[in-house]
Amino acid sequence: MTNTEKPVILITNDDGITAPGISNLVEAVRDLGQIYVVAPDSPQSGMGHAITIGEPLRLHKSDVFDGIAAWECSGTPADCVKLARDKILHRKPDLCLSGINHGANHSINIIYSGTMSAAMEAAIEGIPSAGFSLLDFKYEADFSVARQVVRSIAIQMLQSNLPVHTLLNVNIPKVTSDNFKGIKICRQAYAKWQEEFDQRTDPRGKDYYWMTGKFINLDKGDDTDVQALADGYSSVVPIKFDFTDTVMKTTLENSWKDILTKS
Amino acid sequence: MTNTEKPVILITNDDGITAPGISNLVEAVRDLGQIYVVAPDSPQSGMGHAITIGEPLRLHKSDVFDGIAAWECSGTPADCVKLARDKILHRKPDLCLSGINHGANHSINIIYSGTMSAAMEAAIEGIPSAGFSLLDFKYEADFSVARQVVRSIAIQMLQSNLPVHTLLNVNIPKVTSDNFKGIKICRQAYAKWQEEFDQRTDPRGKDYYWMTGKFINLDKGDDTDVQALADGYSSVVPIKFDFTDTVMKTTLENSWKDILTKS
Repeated sequence: MTNTEKPVILITNDDGITAPGISNLVEAVRDLGQIYVVAPDSPQSGMGHAITIGEPLRLHKSDVFDGIAAWECSGTPADCVKLARDKILHRKPDLCLSGINHGANHSINIIYSGTMSAAMEAAIEGIPSAGFSLLDFKYEADFSVARQVVRSIAIQMLQSNLPVHTLLNVNIPKVTSDNFKGIKICRQAYAKWQEEFDQRTDPRGKDYYWMTGKFINLDKGDDTDVQALADGYSSVVPIKFDFTDTVMKTTLENSWKDILTKS
Repeated sequence: MTNTEKPVILITNDDGITAPGISNLVEAVRDLGQIYVVAPDSPQSGMGHAITIGEPLRLHKSDVFDGIAAWECSGTPADCVKLARDKILHRKPDLCLSGINHGANHSINIIYSGTMSAAMEAAIEGIPSAGFSLLDFKYEADFSVARQVVRSIAIQMLQSNLPVHTLLNVNIPKVTSDNFKGIKICRQAYAKWQEEFDQRTDPRGKDYYWMTGKFINLDKGDDTDVQALADGYSSVVPIKFDFTDTVMKTTLENSWKDILTKS
């Protein structure tokens, strides 16, 4: 990108192209670049990093955002990023923003998150990217603090000359502007869902299960995303997609000599 | 577990309970513990770390493995692990093994992999686990080397007293026993899929796309899983599910002072 050109910003999400979250994301960065939206035509929550390999994908031009080039896609968030680059932009965008998700994607929730799968897909491709999530599931959630956070971070990412594989997981607390404490760089908390399956019997007498569960933070560190959010901050966790546990790698190399071949 | 009790081993996969891969996994470890199989009733490839939140889940007892307690589940591999622990075992198994996947899950493919999502779900829960994948997509693939690798690693995991969050990504090359070089501890290669979308027009004149693509290894290191497999070794990558990029965290803390709130 030369200095005279506006940066190309790709926007996607996992709640679908008509969700208020993506509309708020578009409005937050509308003037910062040339915006392209490619987003799922229906909600994809809980899809993790799914890609569509067994069926054909569809792309349809959408006029849901006034004055913004937009397409709806029959696939997952990761599909949207792949198709956008190859079939719409025919180049890498300068920045990819995903969200704003309706609901938290902090701590371990990143692995189930379609919002973050789109951002991760972009980062693997060498496109600096960020996923944004607001800790409010409601359709009519107040996105005003979230818009402010998105805009600050997008400006910073465009100005910072970050590594091409940069990937940020940004969560925004459910607070009013007055109670918002600011942005904090964090690490991912070790927290998890403790499932409880609601067991029922259908009219034919067969059992079935609904997944429910409660979220438990098992990480007492004060530099985690979960703690920052509880304190009224927006959390920013830089994520890497090399998942190698380098400490365990050394442990196994030393302790598993019996089953390892000498090279 | 006391010394007199057999360890409880949970087995799952993403190719479905009738795939030859899971049958080979069961046979490889049948005598090492008390085996329970809970696996999807249909193939789930490319589903990433999906969980089923919008629809009910079903479990049906299966007699597909002679003398082994087995259930088929309508959900994803991650669902299988959650349901197995809560509704079948009513306890944590001592070990969770996933696979043997028909096809590679090395390098970045871990993020798209249902096989590895089941293993990761178990590790998050504090169940040492491993996912196994054979570099051969064919239904009638030869699993003899894979069975040998699975057995060695399962024995080592049961004996090693590994941390409860241990998670191993094991890939097995498509080689004969004579050409198999052994097991190697590796790091995850930086490699990716370069998508090519095959664009077609349906009978109503509308465009659609099939995702295809080729795999490119961009990592020239000699300690990667991709390199080990190319050399005829089985790769073992220890994986952690804290994805925080700690180097980038420090960089952002120092360089983004303008938008960060002092704590």
